[in-house]
Amino acid sequence: MLNFSQERYLKVTEGALSLRSQIEQAADEISKKGFKNIFLLGSGGSIAIMYPFEYMLNSLSTIPSYAEIASEFMLQNHKQFTKESLVILSSLSGTTEETVAAAEYCKQHGVTSIGLVGEMGTPLAGLVDYPIANYAENDFAADSINLQMYMLVFRLIHNHGEFEQYETFIDQLQTIPEQLIKVKELTDPKAADFAARYKNEDYHMLVGSGTAWGRTYAYAMCVLEEMQWIRTKSIHAAEFFHGTIELVEEDLSMILLKCEDETRPLMERVERFAEKYTKKLSIFDTADYPLDGISQEFRKYLAPLVLATALQRVSIHLEKQRGHSLETRRYYRTVAY
Amino acid sequence: MLNFSQERYLKVTEGALSLRSQIEQAADEISKKGFKNIFLLGSGGSIAIMYPFEYMLNSLSTIPSYAEIASEFMLQNHKQFTKESLVILSSLSGTTEETVAAAEYCKQHGVTSIGLVGEMGTPLAGLVDYPIANYAENDFAADSINLQMYMLVFRLIHNHGEFEQYETFIDQLQTIPEQLIKVKELTDPKAADFAARYKNEDYHMLVGSGTAWGRTYAYAMCVLEEMQWIRTKSIHAAEFFHGTIELVEEDLSMILLKCEDETRPLMERVERFAEKYTKKLSIFDTADYPLDGISQEFRKYLAPLVLATALQRVSIHLEKQRGHSLETRRYYRTVAY
Repeated sequence: MLNFSQERYLKVTEGALSLRSQIEQAADEISKKGFKNIFLLGSGGSIAIMYPFEYMLNSLSTIPSYAEIASEFMLQNHKQFTKESLVILSSLSGTTEETVAAAEYCKQHGVTSIGLVGEMGTPLAGLVDYPIANYAENDFAADSINLQMYMLVFRLIHNHGEFEQYETFIDQLQTIPEQLIKVKELTDPKAADFAARYKNEDYHMLVGSGTAWGRTYAYAMCVLEEMQWIRTKSIHAAEFFHGTIELVEEDLSMILLKCEDETRPLMERVERFAEKYTKKLSIFDTADYPLDGISQEFRKYLAPLVLATALQRVSIHLEKQRGHSLETRRYYRTVAY
Repeated sequence: MLNFSQERYLKVTEGALSLRSQIEQAADEISKKGFKNIFLLGSGGSIAIMYPFEYMLNSLSTIPSYAEIASEFMLQNHKQFTKESLVILSSLSGTTEETVAAAEYCKQHGVTSIGLVGEMGTPLAGLVDYPIANYAENDFAADSINLQMYMLVFRLIHNHGEFEQYETFIDQLQTIPEQLIKVKELTDPKAADFAARYKNEDYHMLVGSGTAWGRTYAYAMCVLEEMQWIRTKSIHAAEFFHGTIELVEEDLSMILLKCEDETRPLMERVERFAEKYTKKLSIFDTADYPLDGISQEFRKYLAPLVLATALQRVSIHLEKQRGHSLETRRYYRTVAY
């Protein structure tokens, strides 16, 4: 596959999975000590990764959970945030300004924090109570963090007596790296087609729901907008019919990110509409991938991971077809703001 | 002012305020009975109205609060939702499909619900435990619902021992209708200018934060997209720098909705950036309006109301300048979906 190093990918994903005992030990220690609620903090790509886990926590567990944008959270004086809270943050570089500030804020408030980082010795790693490190570069960052989040969040839920299938789920996850490569291979021709067909499109509407919403929001903002300078609207499937629908015309590009959780009917409704009213409809659906070794009951949790890995192929092909490097920025780390 | 009936506006806003004793009685009864958390449910414009109240609840009160998109909420099996929850819904027509379904869902689960509606005798009014009715048409709906929400939500917080200034705040609110007309009058020339200058713009980026985020999201989706068929991106000020920023060029229209809460510095940062990099910058700021009779300490809560009423003038002038009725739809109530 174009611009894909299987060796590097396996190193990142297997590296994340190899943290299992470290993550479980941290989670068990935290569960034993006790906590009242979980705050998932981040900005941009890193808060987008948290949204599906907030959804899963709310669906599976009575632990109250709040995914909050880090810099707003620090200003608003959130009353559920107490010394009995648990905070989870992530930053690949370990230097993201708002995330580091949020970790400092937690420390000042005496709140237990876990930080998922690319390497130890970074500012975030130095500030949190439980730093967990797995080296990754930007292209595979979501895969690395997602894998760690499954182990961390589901272990905490399990310890709370609410997900007894934990061992089976995480055992099955050990073989996912090979399956994710298959996801990439299966997506690749479709991604190449998409990029060739839509390379000149100046706007895409992205629709998702449930566990796929975070990736929908992130792919629009962190890839199409940030890395390709293409305008987007990301809209939740349940919200689409309340306004954004009126933009649809037969030459408007719609990208649907479908998953297999309870919210699938919301996406099917959007799909039925889109099939009728636009000729530019693209669908990426977790149900299209076999994911051998993963039980049916666990598939619905994997949308964030599967969609991130699949869409990464779209990014690679857009880069090539559009002659626009995924690394080029007008502003970020180019000008001060 | 163009297309503005002062008489009708006063009838709607004073009608909402006249519900004070009914709302307080309902809130007091509910507080006395006790509840564990609040779910604010809605879709499109009606969930957007809830977001600032979720923010204010989280900033002011230890009552856990969750603003959720109605149709996703009903599918996801939210574990914080129990018989001890309190649900608040609104639907002007009292017939919005998802809102009525959510009220039915609450009833089935034996959960106390409050419904803000345009008139009694509608399906929503018939389903909720506490129907509260104030007649309004679409153009002043947000003002009507917002006013009721202040009384309802702040009374519940007050009853929880966390907002002792309640009586003063709501007493002061009694004179707000005249002040809101002044807001409209002060905005009107600017709105006319905006519409004349940007009538041919095919895309706007809207940025907001804190108590202004709900209106930012709603104005983009429910007015510019739904009523004017103009593409938009609504982005939170704290998220803007994490991707969407890269779209900014000197001919890209940015609309900043500023409020006076703790998150104002986030908007100021976006503003400093926008001033440098686009020539098409429009700012609507609650701080520009005198709001006589409202104490400084309460101004920050009023952003949802003030911005909704101010931006309504923009809608009116866009309609005129673009020759595109605010009532025309391609799909909604035109085709089945």
